[in-house]
Amino acid sequence: MKRILTGIKGLDDMLDGGLPSSRFILVCGGPGSGKTIFGMQFLYNGATKHGENGLYVSLDESPSHLKEDMSAFGWDIESLEKEGKLAIIDASPIRTIPGEVKIGNFSIGKRDFNLLSLVEIIKKNVKEIGAKRIVIDPITSLILQYPDDSERRNAILDLFEAITDLGATCLISTELRATALEREIQAEEFLSHGVIVFHAFNDGGRLIRAIQIEKMRGISHDHQLRPYKIHENGIIVFAKETVLTNT
Amino acid sequence: MKRILTGIKGLDDMLDGGLPSSRFILVCGGPGSGKTIFGMQFLYNGATKHGENGLYVSLDESPSHLKEDMSAFGWDIESLEKEGKLAIIDASPIRTIPGEVKIGNFSIGKRDFNLLSLVEIIKKNVKEIGAKRIVIDPITSLILQYPDDSERRNAILDLFEAITDLGATCLISTELRATALEREIQAEEFLSHGVIVFHAFNDGGRLIRAIQIEKMRGISHDHQLRPYKIHENGIIVFAKETVLTNT
Amino acid sequence: MKRILTGIKGLDDMLDGGLPSSRFILVCGGPGSGKTIFGMQFLYNGATKHGENGLYVSLDESPSHLKEDMSAFGWDIESLEKEGKLAIIDASPIRTIPGEVKIGNFSIGKRDFNLLSLVEIIKKNVKEIGAKRIVIDPITSLILQYPDDSERRNAILDLFEAITDLGATCLISTELRATALEREIQAEEFLSHGVIVFHAFNDGGRLIRAIQIEKMRGISHDHQLRPYKIHENGIIVFAKETVLTNT
Amino acid sequence: MKRILTGIKGLDDMLDGGLPSSRFILVCGGPGSGKTIFGMQFLYNGATKHGENGLYVSLDESPSHLKEDMSAFGWDIESLEKEGKLAIIDASPIRTIPGEVKIGNFSIGKRDFNLLSLVEIIKKNVKEIGAKRIVIDPITSLILQYPDDSERRNAILDLFEAITDLGATCLISTELRATALEREIQAEEFLSHGVIVFHAFNDGGRLIRAIQIEKMRGISHDHQLRPYKIHENGIIVFAKETVLTNT
Amino acid sequence: MKRILTGIKGLDDMLDGGLPSSRFILVCGGPGSGKTIFGMQFLYNGATKHGENGLYVSLDESPSHLKEDMSAFGWDIESLEKEGKLAIIDASPIRTIPGEVKIGNFSIGKRDFNLLSLVEIIKKNVKEIGAKRIVIDPITSLILQYPDDSERRNAILDLFEAITDLGATCLISTELRATALEREIQAEEFLSHGVIVFHAFNDGGRLIRAIQIEKMRGISHDHQLRPYKIHENGIIVFAKETVLTNT
Amino acid sequence: MKRILTGIKGLDDMLDGGLPSSRFILVCGGPGSGKTIFGMQFLYNGATKHGENGLYVSLDESPSHLKEDMSAFGWDIESLEKEGKLAIIDASPIRTIPGEVKIGNFSIGKRDFNLLSLVEIIKKNVKEIGAKRIVIDPITSLILQYPDDSERRNAILDLFEAITDLGATCLISTELRATALEREIQAEEFLSHGVIVFHAFNDGGRLIRAIQIEKMRGISHDHQLRPYKIHENGIIVFAKETVLTNT
Repeated sequence: MKRILTGIKGLDDMLDGGLPSSRFILVCGGPGSGKTIFGMQFLYNGATKHGENGLYVSLDESPSHLKEDMSAFGWDIESLEKEGKLAIIDASPIRTIPGEVKIGNFSIGKRDFNLLSLVEIIKKNVKEIGAKRIVIDPITSLILQYPDDSERRNAILDLFEAITDLGATCLISTELRATALEREIQAEEFLSHGVIVFHAFNDGGRLIRAIQIEKMRGISHDHQLRPYKIHENGIIVFAKETVLTNT
Repeated sequence: MKRILTGIKGLDDMLDGGLPSSRFILVCGGPGSGKTIFGMQFLYNGATKHGENGLYVSLDESPSHLKEDMSAFGWDIESLEKEGKLAIIDASPIRTIPGEVKIGNFSIGKRDFNLLSLVEIIKKNVKEIGAKRIVIDPITSLILQYPDDSERRNAILDLFEAITDLGATCLISTELRATALEREIQAEEFLSHGVIVFHAFNDGGRLIRAIQIEKMRGISHDHQLRPYKIHENGIIVFAKETVLTNT
Repeated sequence: MKRILTGIKGLDDMLDGGLPSSRFILVCGGPGSGKTIFGMQFLYNGATKHGENGLYVSLDESPSHLKEDMSAFGWDIESLEKEGKLAIIDASPIRTIPGEVKIGNFSIGKRDFNLLSLVEIIKKNVKEIGAKRIVIDPITSLILQYPDDSERRNAILDLFEAITDLGATCLISTELRATALEREIQAEEFLSHGVIVFHAFNDGGRLIRAIQIEKMRGISHDHQLRPYKIHENGIIVFAKETVLTNT
Repeated sequence: MKRILTGIKGLDDMLDGGLPSSRFILVCGGPGSGKTIFGMQFLYNGATKHGENGLYVSLDESPSHLKEDMSAFGWDIESLEKEGKLAIIDASPIRTIPGEVKIGNFSIGKRDFNLLSLVEIIKKNVKEIGAKRIVIDPITSLILQYPDDSERRNAILDLFEAITDLGATCLISTELRATALEREIQAEEFLSHGVIVFHAFNDGGRLIRAIQIEKMRGISHDHQLRPYKIHENGIIVFAKETVLTNT
Repeated sequence: MKRILTGIKGLDDMLDGGLPSSRFILVCGGPGSGKTIFGMQFLYNGATKHGENGLYVSLDESPSHLKEDMSAFGWDIESLEKEGKLAIIDASPIRTIPGEVKIGNFSIGKRDFNLLSLVEIIKKNVKEIGAKRIVIDPITSLILQYPDDSERRNAILDLFEAITDLGATCLISTELRATALEREIQAEEFLSHGVIVFHAFNDGGRLIRAIQIEKMRGISHDHQLRPYKIHENGIIVFAKETVLTNT
Repeated sequence: MKRILTGIKGLDDMLDGGLPSSRFILVCGGPGSGKTIFGMQFLYNGATKHGENGLYVSLDESPSHLKEDMSAFGWDIESLEKEGKLAIIDASPIRTIPGEVKIGNFSIGKRDFNLLSLVEIIKKNVKEIGAKRIVIDPITSLILQYPDDSERRNAILDLFEAITDLGATCLISTELRATALEREIQAEEFLSHGVIVFHAFNDGGRLIRAIQIEKMRGISHDHQLRPYKIHENGIIVFAKETVLTNT
């Protein structure tokens, strides 16, 4: 299987040589765990080190805030945009599209229209810059529009199928609502080709951060928890260290 | 009772000689636990070692991705397909069949139509290649379509009865939503003839993987947790080892 | 109070001489805990050792599978059927009876009709073979048809009253959805004359099986947990042993 | 405050001289905890030792089963009935009263009719035998008919007010659905004058039974857990012993 | 900020000189924790030691029962009533007011009418005896009438605003449904000026009672748990002792 | 990134130089944790030490109570109001605005009108005093009006976008309903630029208070728990101390 280096040394070691190419990888984490940093670092490394252009699809945050935040790590996103190596799309308007929509004589709901819109936006932009890496951050707004479990599952699969056809490796972030290891597992974790979890848990008053490759189809990988840090140059993973808790 | 060897030595030892023939076995596990690998390994071993053809019914994943993933274990699925020893059906279209359906004057809902469709697809393919082993991976999409507990139970029983008539041994995978041993037990675990659980739990920062035969009607079996690994040639079970946790 | 020997030595000791006669005993357990084996063993011992005929009412499983499973314990159910000492009824058709039903001018729902049907089937068969022991396995399908707590309670009481008039001792199995001792207690445990619980819990990686007489009206009994095994001749209870866990 | 001796030595010690007279006492416990035995023992002691007649209102169980069960403790309920010292009413018919009911021009629901019926039945019987002790066992069937929290609370208060006017001390049993000490507390525990809890919990494999006076308005009392046993002559409470658990 | 002494020495010490004047203080506790005793003790001390008249608004319990219960502590409530220093109002009729209500052309629901009624009753009585201390015991019946979280919050705020105008210090009791320290915190705890919690929890078989000032706006206070007892003269708080648990 | 000093030494140290300017910071805490004190301290320090005017938007509490409470810390809010350095708005009327609202021909619901009203009130006041710091305390009333998860998320994002345009740094408080570290994480924690959590948890009977910067986009920060106190001059954070629990 072809591999895509994330450019984060420890993580690429855990992955035994990088992410599988042209697949869907879910990134789960709590608030402040570094999901957005990880996504941008994946694109930044692709554009600057591995010659692969990237597309960042932002559903909640404004591109200007994003770029300001990322400058803290010394990443000059704007220059990459100008060079055509990286594009950020503000997909938040799908939140405010009103009412029912018709395609020919077929009436589709607002929800499915939002899904179609997002796919169209992504396709168009991937083609424009020839992106090989896509980040969708986060998928939550879209998923919440489907309160029915069965519909939600189908919507996720539909999105995955549509994007897979583009031949790019896609990271999708999702929000972890519980800090504990005993969280309820969400449908998207079963439907993705790979799942990377950013853990944050309390050990007798001390907070511990660890990354785990919960699942990665088609490649052998380390499935243990490994400590990570958010450093001045982005995320660092300590692939040889173990996490030991007292409680 | 006639037995079917899974071809996984440690598991066949735990089963005291293999799975009961012509029965329904449920396989429960979290994301990345190896349910799909196990299913394919069961069919691969059947076709290559035990002279039994197999049918793989995929509800979420595309056959091309599946084959690419399995090549990591050195399993040449395509050759087996060409020799007529193994067939993979993409049953995902049952997700997108619209509306109400009529059989004669009797109107049945979309859900029951999907169930009937799946059974028809399976029957047809089992006959075509004379399959003695069936894998349905996963049953979740179908089950979620029945939000009512009573209807869901009946749908599962209807499916089991229809497949049982085919005389093949059938593995059905289902998703474990909680990583803990204290999960809520689902109806399908009570309705199956056998249940194999892939556990993954946290022991003070270290992840432990273990397989358990929760239930296997008609044969004596080991009911303790035993460690397992996903190895370069598929799943390995350590039937003589015990799982010891500190917390 | 008149007693009925289960024929399982350790359990009869815990019961200080057997189950109370002509009462309703609930049997709760998880998947693979041995509820069905216990029910059949109760009938088999009745027919072969204590001269009491038995009726087995199966709601989920086919009689042919049942008999095949039980042959593993050396119980020749078919011969007992031929001698008129044991009868197995397949009550699963009550799952598929359609729509509303009228009794005279009084319209009753499908649910209450299913309940009435089951009672009629049981009455008829109890008379035919003069059964002194009844097993209903499991009650779940019927209970799930009543989503309202108040209606469910009434349905259970109605069933218990109707069967009690027959003068036979009745075991009814029900599914335990949580493996922990801290499960939510169900209404039927309060409404039965006796409750026998098959526990399975995890003690630091080791699974422990234990039987407990949670309740048995009108007779003194051991209320502690006692280990049990599923042996080549059926269930064995170690009435003098205690269960000690480390966690 | 006037006191009523339960006749159970240890419990009367915990109560510093018996229950408060003419009040409502709730008795909470799991299946097999001894709620029914306790209620009957309270009436039996009243009738045989303290010259106070008693009324037992049974909502789930038949009087004949009750009397058979109680004979295990050597209590001859039938003789007391004949002497007019104790009466058992089978109030289960309130379960099967159909539809809406009118009082004059005022239409009341089935639920409120059931409540009124129960109160009328109790009033009539209390007068007939001059009962000073009442047991209602259990209140659950009635409470479940009010799914709305606010209505349920009002129904309980209405029942309590109506019965209080009769001048008798009333024990009402209710079902504890969780075995743990961390149960959710029910509205009726706040509305009663007193609450006696029958605990059963697991301590590393050993079951422990303990009685606790959670609340008893107007009298000083022991609020700690104390062990109890169901003995050949009924319930015994060890008021001087403490409960110590290891887990 | 002006202070109001509760007259309970240990609690006034924890409060560094008493409750803040003219504010709303919530009192949370389980059944039997002493909420009602505390409320009455607050009024009794006000009337007999601090020259401040008090109003007790009872929503669940009859005034006659209340007075009988309080006589156990040697508090002669009736004499205080006669001297015009303390008044008990039975506000339970607000439970039974039927249907919709009109004020001019404006139709308000039963719920809001009950709220208005309660406020009017309180205003009228506060004026009549010049009350400086108010106890509302409990607020639960009123709150349960608003099943919608948003409406409930508004109703609580409306009540607090209306009462605050009266210039009296007001204690409102509410029911704690879970015995554990990990309870879900209710909206009213956020909306009150102060919150006093009566804890009761299990420490390895031994019940521990402790009082905690969770919140008290505008004054410095002890926020640790401190043991308390219900003594023959009312509640005693041990402000210098700590609570130490083993589990 | 430009920084805004909170004026709380320990917290500014944890933030490595203050909050990021012109962003949305969420402040989560239980009742009595000091959310309101923190908000006012942020504005007071801004106005008196850093030359930045502030706006306090109160949704639940009256300005007069607020000012009285804050005088306990020696903060003379009224003088600052007169000097035009600080403004308190009572935004509680948005709770009582009735019915549906029309803007031109476009009918919007009460909920969205409340949101628009709040934004308008804030914009107007920010302009009037040239506020650089805004506190909204709490956001709960507004959020509860959206019971649907998807709508709620959109409302929060709409509010954040509208306020962000004003160029002021905005603290928004929200209520933590569980005292445990294992709480369910709310949507607003994912949508804010930063999250500060006020923890209060029980360690074997002793309550521990700690502050945690769960998230702060664009700046490096301490993510561990650090003890804090509510002191006579406001909140103090011990940025060099760790929290150690025994249980």
